[in-house]
Amino acid sequence: MGGNSIGEPTTDRFADDPAFAVHEGGKLSMVCTRAIGSMADLALTYTPGVARVSSAIAAEPDLARRFTWAPRVVAVVSDGTAVLGLGDIGPAASLPVMEGKACLFKELAGLSAVPVVLATTDVDTIVETVAAIAPSFGGINLEDISAPRCFEIEARLRERLDIPVMHDDQHGTAIVVLAALRNAAKVVGRPLADLRVVVAGAGAAGVACTKILLEAGVGDIAVADSKGVLHAGREDLTPIKRWLVENTNRAGYAGTMVGALEGADVYLGLSGGSVPEAAIASMAPGCIVFSLANPTPEVDPGMAAKYAAVVATGRSDLANQINNVLAFPGIFRGAIDAGARSITEEMKLAAATAIADVVGDEVRADYIVPSPLDGRVVDAVATAVASCAREQGVTR
Amino acid sequence: MGGNSIGEPTTDRFADDPAFAVHEGGKLSMVCTRAIGSMADLALTYTPGVARVSSAIAAEPDLARRFTWAPRVVAVVSDGTAVLGLGDIGPAASLPVMEGKACLFKELAGLSAVPVVLATTDVDTIVETVAAIAPSFGGINLEDISAPRCFEIEARLRERLDIPVMHDDQHGTAIVVLAALRNAAKVVGRPLADLRVVVAGAGAAGVACTKILLEAGVGDIAVADSKGVLHAGREDLTPIKRWLVENTNRAGYAGTMVGALEGADVYLGLSGGSVPEAAIASMAPGCIVFSLANPTPEVDPGMAAKYAAVVATGRSDLANQINNVLAFPGIFRGAIDAGARSITEEMKLAAATAIADVVGDEVRADYIVPSPLDGRVVDAVATAVASCAREQGVTR
Repeated sequence: MGGNSIGEPTTDRFADDPAFAVHEGGKLSMVCTRAIGSMADLALTYTPGVARVSSAIAAEPDLARRFTWAPRVVAVVSDGTAVLGLGDIGPAASLPVMEGKACLFKELAGLSAVPVVLATTDVDTIVETVAAIAPSFGGINLEDISAPRCFEIEARLRERLDIPVMHDDQHGTAIVVLAALRNAAKVVGRPLADLRVVVAGAGAAGVACTKILLEAGVGDIAVADSKGVLHAGREDLTPIKRWLVENTNRAGYAGTMVGALEGADVYLGLSGGSVPEAAIASMAPGCIVFSLANPTPEVDPGMAAKYAAVVATGRSDLANQINNVLAFPGIFRGAIDAGARSITEEMKLAAATAIADVVGDEVRADYIVPSPLDGRVVDAVATAVASCAREQGVTR
Repeated sequence: MGGNSIGEPTTDRFADDPAFAVHEGGKLSMVCTRAIGSMADLALTYTPGVARVSSAIAAEPDLARRFTWAPRVVAVVSDGTAVLGLGDIGPAASLPVMEGKACLFKELAGLSAVPVVLATTDVDTIVETVAAIAPSFGGINLEDISAPRCFEIEARLRERLDIPVMHDDQHGTAIVVLAALRNAAKVVGRPLADLRVVVAGAGAAGVACTKILLEAGVGDIAVADSKGVLHAGREDLTPIKRWLVENTNRAGYAGTMVGALEGADVYLGLSGGSVPEAAIASMAPGCIVFSLANPTPEVDPGMAAKYAAVVATGRSDLANQINNVLAFPGIFRGAIDAGARSITEEMKLAAATAIADVVGDEVRADYIVPSPLDGRVVDAVATAVASCAREQGVTR
């Protein structure tokens, strides 16, 4: 691979990009926790010793939590239909992303994770497949599955399975956006209930962000898709968009996203594209701009800084990176530590508060969220999530 | 776990059995091949670097073989219906066995392997599930799935998938039995074509052993299930048993397994239960007894030694352990190394010959197969399998 074994060495066209070197041979490896160096080891790890452990679990199923790896393993499941900014690239091409996610689970939260990419995009087949393999895992992280299928898949699996299931593109993003907004609101000295937010994008992230901001008590939200702000007069609404109409946009505004920005306190960009400077200039004084499209934010951060009191993006090379790496490792760690049967809305809210609280009194306009590699984050989130799960009684 | 954190320490009822200590917390752990210690690492392993790798694979799917872990990962798939000698104990209780198998893949062949235990025993659902998750893996090891469902599941998955699929309880066992019989025949100085074999058991292993022994040129075989030897007059035959009737028992013998042993050269026990001494005494002079039930062989090895020239069992504490650990790691290693699209009959026969040849000229009555931990075995098998795959042109 990457060379010619019989003749002259060939030039490797991937040699100049270190990202390819990091991916050579894949980013994951399975290891055994005990070596098998002797027949005695073999007789304990495999037959005949393993039969005593299997018999014990058959008689008392809860022993699987102690004597198998499954309860501490997360499946990172994708059908490859909505991968990063790349779209529907299929299961094989999505694998590096799922492997990367598995690496982050391990490196940040000490959890083993297994990429499971699917040769189907059919909702029923995905639900049946994940339900069938579920006894192998302690949690299911759904990833990069396109809207609106992601809503039904997550809802049906949450209903059906007795382990934590979370679509990270929805809830991971929403949790970190809420954490960031809590601290941004602190910076501008305003309660969440006072804020009028414009959410640009009504896909997986837009829907979940809107829901969690409403749960957290944000004053009012206008949600826009590519055709403009969602309102009761629209005749092209999917079930989830109808739900949004019923719970947002109190004024019944029926114009464009850009129009809705006039006098708004917060812009939350989850859509890509670009927003004209005049629209940002028309926002309320001391406004907040979260422009999360990657690699090119919808609002140029330099331009935004001319009008906004706080600016955040998804980029690692700028201040205030809103990155769901801040959420998912600690959420699954906490849920699994507590033996949670699901991840509830309250657990998500607790995670957002925990992330915001890591910043604490050091909060300022260019420091509203911790660094993704801040070692305090995963512990804070896991502790908050586990304690919330125990309080709610959703644990085993 | 295993103690009482608030009061007096409690006695751990598993403390006396080292098998449970080995299984504490599970036997597997996922690791990352590259550390994520800096934002620069994060930007290569995850966004934005990973997007360049995913884009490259989307444009040129074969690059997944180089830049993802999947092509070198085996899924160890079970529905927990035929686990060791324990029977239908379900997915959770089967997990320690699948984890053990994954450990052996890693420790013996350097292959990562992932246990996938299923919450279904329905043939269609199992086939659809494994087909759906197949892009995540480079090979499928089916394990401990009861007969006759295992035959249909394996056949349909082999037909449908473009990666190696093997039901180890069938073919792993069959390959090692053939390797052992080749060397046992050498010890008694007879060609395989001269031998009349009685196979006790018409389940997964019995069927596969019979097929491979026929392919290897064994003279004649009588296969018995719990109702006696399979013959054309039986009216309770499944499709696979009808196939056996058409290809075995040339004399049309219609009696019991014990009756068939009279004058037979080889007894192959795969059924459990026990065989009376008189039956073994009635076999041909210089006969061969392979009694593979675990932990209690069908024929007491001490008694067998009074009549047989060569005796083998499945037990690790006796000479001549017939253990499929000798086969599966090298078979998948070779198939994956060669980029094989399937595991053919020829590759299985090559594996059996390679195992037998490791013993080579040292062959003797109490040394017909190598030790499961003999480091030469996996290399010999992998090399033979890969080279056979290349010769057959079943590689990518």
